[in-house]
Formats: sequence, C-alpha cells, structure tokens
Amino acid sequence: MNFHTRKWVKPEDLNPNGTLFGGSLLRWIDEEAAIYAIVQLENPHVVTKYISEINFVSSAKQGDIIEMGITATDFGNTSLTMRCEVRNKITRKSILTIDKMVFVNVDRDGNPAPHGKTQIKFIEEQFQNEDH
Amino acid sequence: MNFHTRKWVKPEDLNPNGTLFGGSLLRWIDEEAAIYAIVQLENPHVVTKYISEINFVSSAKQGDIIEMGITATDFGNTSLTMRCEVRNKITRKSILTIDKMVFVNVDRDGNPAPHGKTQIKFIEEQFQNEDH
Amino acid sequence: MNFHTRKWVKPEDLNPNGTLFGGSLLRWIDEEAAIYAIVQLENPHVVTKYISEINFVSSAKQGDIIEMGITATDFGNTSLTMRCEVRNKITRKSILTIDKMVFVNVDRDGNPAPHGKTQIKFIEEQFQNEDH
Amino acid sequence: MNFHTRKWVKPEDLNPNGTLFGGSLLRWIDEEAAIYAIVQLENPHVVTKYISEINFVSSAKQGDIIEMGITATDFGNTSLTMRCEVRNKITRKSILTIDKMVFVNVDRDGNPAPHGKTQIKFIEEQFQNEDH
Amino acid sequence: MNFHTRKWVKPEDLNPNGTLFGGSLLRWIDEEAAIYAIVQLENPHVVTKYISEINFVSSAKQGDIIEMGITATDFGNTSLTMRCEVRNKITRKSILTIDKMVFVNVDRDGNPAPHGKTQIKFIEEQFQNEDH
Amino acid sequence: MNFHTRKWVKPEDLNPNGTLFGGSLLRWIDEEAAIYAIVQLENPHVVTKYISEINFVSSAKQGDIIEMGITATDFGNTSLTMRCEVRNKITRKSILTIDKMVFVNVDRDGNPAPHGKTQIKFIEEQFQNEDH
Repeated sequence: MNFHTRKWVKPEDLNPNGTLFGGSLLRWIDEEAAIYAIVQLENPHVVTKYISEINFVSSAKQGDIIEMGITATDFGNTSLTMRCEVRNKITRKSILTIDKMVFVNVDRDGNPAPHGKTQIKFIEEQFQNEDH
Repeated sequence: MNFHTRKWVKPEDLNPNGTLFGGSLLRWIDEEAAIYAIVQLENPHVVTKYISEINFVSSAKQGDIIEMGITATDFGNTSLTMRCEVRNKITRKSILTIDKMVFVNVDRDGNPAPHGKTQIKFIEEQFQNEDH
Repeated sequence: MNFHTRKWVKPEDLNPNGTLFGGSLLRWIDEEAAIYAIVQLENPHVVTKYISEINFVSSAKQGDIIEMGITATDFGNTSLTMRCEVRNKITRKSILTIDKMVFVNVDRDGNPAPHGKTQIKFIEEQFQNEDH
Repeated sequence: MNFHTRKWVKPEDLNPNGTLFGGSLLRWIDEEAAIYAIVQLENPHVVTKYISEINFVSSAKQGDIIEMGITATDFGNTSLTMRCEVRNKITRKSILTIDKMVFVNVDRDGNPAPHGKTQIKFIEEQFQNEDH
Repeated sequence: MNFHTRKWVKPEDLNPNGTLFGGSLLRWIDEEAAIYAIVQLENPHVVTKYISEINFVSSAKQGDIIEMGITATDFGNTSLTMRCEVRNKITRKSILTIDKMVFVNVDRDGNPAPHGKTQIKFIEEQFQNEDH
Repeated sequence: MNFHTRKWVKPEDLNPNGTLFGGSLLRWIDEEAAIYAIVQLENPHVVTKYISEINFVSSAKQGDIIEMGITATDFGNTSLTMRCEVRNKITRKSILTIDKMVFVNVDRDGNPAPHGKTQIKFIEEQFQNEDH
C-alpha cells in the first residue's frame, strides 16, 4: 500500500474536545478513495456504494500530520473494492483501517456500467524513496 | 427512531458529479451521533470508536432536504451503541443506514470512563406532531 | 414549537473571543427556516424576504449543543411567516429569538407565486418523547 | 457611509436555487460590523447584542461583486450602534439594509464595560477617490 | 493605495501553530485582486496569470484585523498588473507585499481578449476620511 | 520530484467562472509545503517566509484530479527551500510551478532556530510503482 495524500491537522478540523473530528477524517478518506477509483477505472463518474466496518484505533491532535493509503483488492464487473489505512505520518501509528470501500463505475445517467478493468494499473515512472 | 437534524443540500456539499458528496454525508452523521451520545450520557467528552458497515442505498441531489435519525440500541459500561438512518425528508426514501455506531465516554485525559447510564433518557415535554 | 436541527459548537464556529460567532449562528438559522418553509410550502424555491429584530440573549461556547426551533405563525398569499428560537439543548437557556422570519414562495423565474397553503401541515406519524 | 469589504459570489456561497444564500450574507455582515466596532472602540472584545429588522431588497447571483458599508450612528456607554447597507458593487443596487446593529464592549470576563468613546474616529490619511 | 477588504482572524484561519495560516492569506489576496480586476476591466471573466515573489514580513494572530490594499500599476492589451499590500489594520504593520499580480481578461471561451482600458477608473463620489 | 497529495476539484473549489479558484490552489500548496518541511526538519513549528514567482500555466475544471509535487532544493541554517509543481494527475499537464518556497524553522517563541539538517531524509521502505 502506498500512502499519498497528507493532511496537517488544523483548528478547523478539530472537535470540541480538541482532537481530530471523526467526521472530517471520514470526509478526507472518501475523497481519497474516489480519486484512487477514478484513476484506476479511468472514469470520473464513480460513486461510493459500501464501506465496511471502521475501527478508530487511535486519534490525532492539532499539528499532527496524517497520511492516507489505499490499495485495490478486487475488481468486479462494475465495481472496485479498496482497502484503506490512515496513519500518523511521523510515528507511523495507525489511526483507522477500513477493509472494504466499494465504489461503482457509473455512466452519465448514474447507472452502473462495466469498467473493463481487471487489475491495478501501474505507472511507468520509478518512484524515488525520498521521505517527504 | 426520531429524526432531528435536517440539511439542505447546497452546492458546497456536492461532488463533481453534482450529487451529494459521500464524505459530507459521513461528516454530518458523525456530528449528529456525537450530539445524541452527549445528550444521553450527559457528558460532553465522547469519541467515535467504531462504525459498522455502511450501505449507500440511494443518493441526494442539490436542493434536497435530508434528515438524520439516531436511536440508542445498547448501553455498555463505558460505551453507547446507536443505530442511524439518513433519508430524504420529502420522499422518505432511505439514503443510508448504519446498524452500529459506537461512541465511548471518556474522562478529561481521554481514557474510557463508566457513564452510569442503562437506558434511553426521555424528556418531559410532549412532542407535537407538526410536520416541519 | 418543536426543536429539530442541532449543532455541536466546534472550533470552526468560534469568533476570536472563543465564543460562538454570531454570523455562524445566523447562517444556521437561515438554513433551518428555509428547510421549514420548503417542507410546509411543498416547493423548493423559497427566498428569505424579511427578518424582524434579533435579540442575542446569551451566548454559547465550544462544546455546547444548541438546537433550533421554528414554527409557522402566518400564511400569506405568497409568503410564510415563522417564529424562531435558538437555545442550549442541555440547559434549555434561550440564546436568541426572532419573532418574524418571512420567506416568499417563488416560481422558476424567481417571481413571487401563490403557494395555496393556509395552515401548518401535520405529519401522520406519532413522535415519541425520547430525549435525543 | 464608506463601503469597504467586498465579496465575489462563488459557488460555495449559493443556495440550491443558485442565488446568494441569505445565511452567507448574514455571516459576512456580522463579521464586517464586528471589525468596524473593534476599530472604533479600540477593543478586540465586542459582541453582537441586537440586530434590527432586515429587508432583503434584491438578491445576488454567482459572479456578482457585493460591497458592505457600515457607519456608526450612536455611541452608548458600553454599546455602539451602527447602520449597514449591502449593495452590488457594479450596479450600486441595494441588496439589504439594517438600521441598527448594536455591539457591546465587554471586558475579559465577558461583562459589558464602558468604552469611553463618543464619536466616530477619523483617520489622518486622505482617501483617494480611485474606483477599485 | 486604498485599503478595502478587511478580515477578522478567526480560529478557522489559523495554522496548527496558532498564527494566521499563510494559505488562507493567499486565498484572500487572490479574491481581492480578482475583484479589483473585474471592477477596473468591467468584465467578470478574469483569471490569475502570474504572481511575483511574496515576502512574508510579519504574521498575524487570532483576533487581529487585517486589511488588503491593491492598486493597478500597468494596463496591457489583455492584462492588468496590480501591486498588493496586506497589513494589520490597527498597527499599520506590513504583513506581506506583492509587487506584481497579473490577471488576464478572457472571453467566454477562456481565451485572452483585449480589455480596452488604459488607466485606473475613478469614481464620482468623494470618500470621507472616517476611520472604519 | 514525488507527487503525493491529490485533490478532486469540487464545486466548493471553483471561482465564479467555473474553473479552479486560484486562491484555493495557493491554499493547498502552502499546506503541502508546510507538511514537507515539517517532515524534513522534524519540527512541527515552521512558517512560510518567501514564495518566488508563480506562473499559472494552465487551469483545472470541476472533476479534475490534481497532484502536488515538492522537493527540497536547499538547506540553510534555519531555512528550507523547496521547489513545487502542481499538475493534472490524469493528463500530466502542468498547472503551475514555483521555483522557491522558503520555510523557516522556528522555536516555541516564533524565532528562527537552526534545524541541523543538511540533506533530504530518505525513508527505509521501497515505494512500489502502482498508479493510484
């Protein structure tokens, strides 16, 4: 699993207890999963269909940097299943994991449509292992 | 289950496909569940611990009014389990359901603490059945 | 008057003095009144026309839960007049009251149009008096 | 009355009908009035106490530029009363007017405190009449 | 240079260090420059093309009032070049300056189009030198 | 240069012309640069000091996925200089480039402090070249 998008926990992301608001976290994950699905399915029209159980293992506080990792685990006919982990960028401590996030490929009328993909798309360029 | 908080789906809540962004919906539900837990446990310090699987049954579009219903289903020693449904206020069509949202009562240091509650708190005033 | 939508006062809702920003509160009320008008008039096209004087009786602070109550007080030919109260959900202390919020029913071109309603619509289901 | 702060109406400011959301407008005015009061009273601790009736004369649409004008009309012992007008920057057409917005000067504990001001403070520099 | 739009630094505008988030400041400046360009070019379709180097001279903290000043420095055939300064409204201390912000006048297809302007437009009304 | 954080351009990110609002883009870059600096300097207290000229090469529209790449180019005594590129994730077309973004390492009082770093920190794990 590669970790891409990162967030810097700012005051606007906190709940009244001063820790990261769970709802903000869920909003970030849903966007990251949509992006992953769009890139893999090469279709901008995808919708969230199902999310499996979510365990909030630990929290985050103001100033923390968190990163989100997503990987495809199953290609259906019209759907894509992904696994997700959110963790603290510095400590690598897990914040939450989601085993299955299912997005569906839809046509312009919003109906499920076959996406024709069967495996993870790899990119040509070599990633450098710089820490950033 | 009583439905309380309502939202008017505005442009700021949409995904690029022009329907309600799933991440916005998850953010709203998490806040509504936190409010329900705080009122029932009479303690402002509660945290999201677990969310069971989420089925996105239907979507919503700009201008729709949606309402969120939550009810307690189990009182643990330090936790509260709730069931949640989001539906279209006008058509009553279900948008999503969540069987279990578990919040934990915490003390000022963020550690789980017994809440001493065993059943749903009822209020003294009689609700009128006005539709609004 | 029934109280529906609730808000959990988060850091993003505060003014620099650390209390609930009046502007955020006004934004919430306007949305709640629009929702009430849309449900009563059975038309999604309504606009704010007039708000009577607003007394800020007390304030709210981070972590407070507030609730908004609205009730129709007069049905004009094209307009709907509502009364509004915002209060602390836990203490029941009033935060502000507005005697008259007038919304107008408009057609697709934005012109006032008769709404044909003369009284508050009641719903069939019986509210339970659960405190949530 | 001088007009200072301007806003460019963006998609995030619209209601589902595609016109400027009244609640966003009220949020902007409340911030502008707070700024005016802080500058005049030379105290960052001011709170909104009262807003007189608001007439929404006309609306605004995406891409419009609006400007807000505020002027002090009365200096009380602990309060400041202001008059407010919002208008379209290009057409000069009025969007709304508020006769009285009353802010109260408070001490660090949030209690009303005399501000010692009796008239509008003028600044030394000469404004140029450039249109911007 | 005249200073128009003001902002009250609220918790939602802070970085995790508790000072004004640079990204929020850049967002505000870009909107203010767009407004200035639209008013001068009398065309709502303008786009940011170039921003010269930005020196962050000092910062701002919660509760500060900042004001933004913009003035046109050059009228090209399809472009407008502006100079910008942001400062603390109370102390007049500079927060940042930008020598050149270039916006381009575009037609409905997004292509550069001559704007026909050669100098700053002045307005007929006399500004009063009230401090607000 | 590695590209990490991605954004899905939603209605809330648009200017009134319906393209990505430049101010939103600048806000995203500033956060991404702050995150990069914090990770490299191993200190959460960093501030934006200087941004070199910004060329807006192309724009983005609703539904586009953009990605941001940052790499360190110079380690000063108390500062870190980075180069930045934003591009369309799908087409790889450049949206903007910034040659120098300088952040300063500060102590708890906000004063510049030596960070003791002289080169880019590499991470132990090998990146896979999966496209996501």
